[in-house]
Amino acid sequence: MSNHVIIAAGGSGSRFSSDVSKQFVNLAGKPMLMRTIEAFHQSFEKINIIVVLPTDQIQHWESLCEDHNFDIEHKIVSGGLQRFDSVKNGLAEVPARDCTIGIHDGARPLITPELIRRAFEHASENGSAIPVVPVTESLRQLEGGGSRTVNRDEFRLVQTPQCFKAEVIKAAFETEYDASFTDEATVVEANNTPVSLMDGDPQNIKITTQSDLELAEKLLS
Amino acid sequence: MSNHVIIAAGGSGSRFSSDVSKQFVNLAGKPMLMRTIEAFHQSFEKINIIVVLPTDQIQHWESLCEDHNFDIEHKIVSGGLQRFDSVKNGLAEVPARDCTIGIHDGARPLITPELIRRAFEHASENGSAIPVVPVTESLRQLEGGGSRTVNRDEFRLVQTPQCFKAEVIKAAFETEYDASFTDEATVVEANNTPVSLMDGDPQNIKITTQSDLELAEKLLS
Repeated sequence: MSNHVIIAAGGSGSRFSSDVSKQFVNLAGKPMLMRTIEAFHQSFEKINIIVVLPTDQIQHWESLCEDHNFDIEHKIVSGGLQRFDSVKNGLAEVPARDCTIGIHDGARPLITPELIRRAFEHASENGSAIPVVPVTESLRQLEGGGSRTVNRDEFRLVQTPQCFKAEVIKAAFETEYDASFTDEATVVEANNTPVSLMDGDPQNIKITTQSDLELAEKLLS
Repeated sequence: MSNHVIIAAGGSGSRFSSDVSKQFVNLAGKPMLMRTIEAFHQSFEKINIIVVLPTDQIQHWESLCEDHNFDIEHKIVSGGLQRFDSVKNGLAEVPARDCTIGIHDGARPLITPELIRRAFEHASENGSAIPVVPVTESLRQLEGGGSRTVNRDEFRLVQTPQCFKAEVIKAAFETEYDASFTDEATVVEANNTPVSLMDGDPQNIKITTQSDLELAEKLLS
């Protein structure tokens, strides 16, 4: 069964104090998107890597690849308005039916080949694999002008890659965008298919702010 | 108005693969509890530091202080069965009425003097200060055998120091322990006093696992 990954790298980086698009920001010497791609390349001998980028950033990405002599094979696809649209465009590039498809945030460059392999394996056995980690701090829910403590043991933080059997994810994406689609799991659930959670990795952080970038630099050093 | 901090260092470290109690584990060369105490010592010229330890660990702590020539003045108090009891014992050591009292996890050694000062100031103005950070990943709630996505924008992760005007926290702790008391904010709220949230610091992590310790080592390097 073949493995495919769609790396969604369309973030504008609006929460990021940088002129460079977030996925192109240097992390320990190279654009973080290259680190993300490398992890997938190392995870399986053969994995089909599809990178979804905003159309107006594709040329810049190609020149970055030249500058860094980055030669890991990957297909570049134009993104859409929403992440949903971008992933849909990526899925169109996977004609195979009997395969496993992972969807990963371009801004999670600390993903390890170990977690990638575990997630693909879990999905091929269970139909889907949503990596989650426990909430290790007290959790409060905002309500009106105030807030209240909720039981953190009932909650999980969700990571990527979210992996699915092709039939599951493809069927789910045969729909129109809805504002409730915050990740791929919610799209699949909206198609009345429950998803299967699995253990993620606390270090598989999403780079959202400059502070996250500093943290990632230190984790890589 | 005087400032007091109660550092709750009673954790058994059961989630920690170490023979040493968690708060005594070395972090970049010294027990993490010493780093925690140092941050408070640096935050205000005069701050009354009260450390609550399990009775059977006090002697070990004192010998660690000798070994490390650790000379920051602090009062040592015996802890109780629950964190609630430990904090109650600590509060008994603060006779002053017109003051601000912070309660901090001994296992948050990356706390900065900047956040400490901000929290005490916020509490002296608003009665309380609960540092929180946004949830930056998708959040799911477990339900029955499954789970569902919730709106992460409605949630906040809670940190320490949780700071209060003395009258607020002392009145709240004149009660018996209840299993719903997961932190000091919940004790104060149970006394029908709303708490005031403020911005925490994403790097002010709680050291719970070996992986958190590695992360903290890297953040300090």
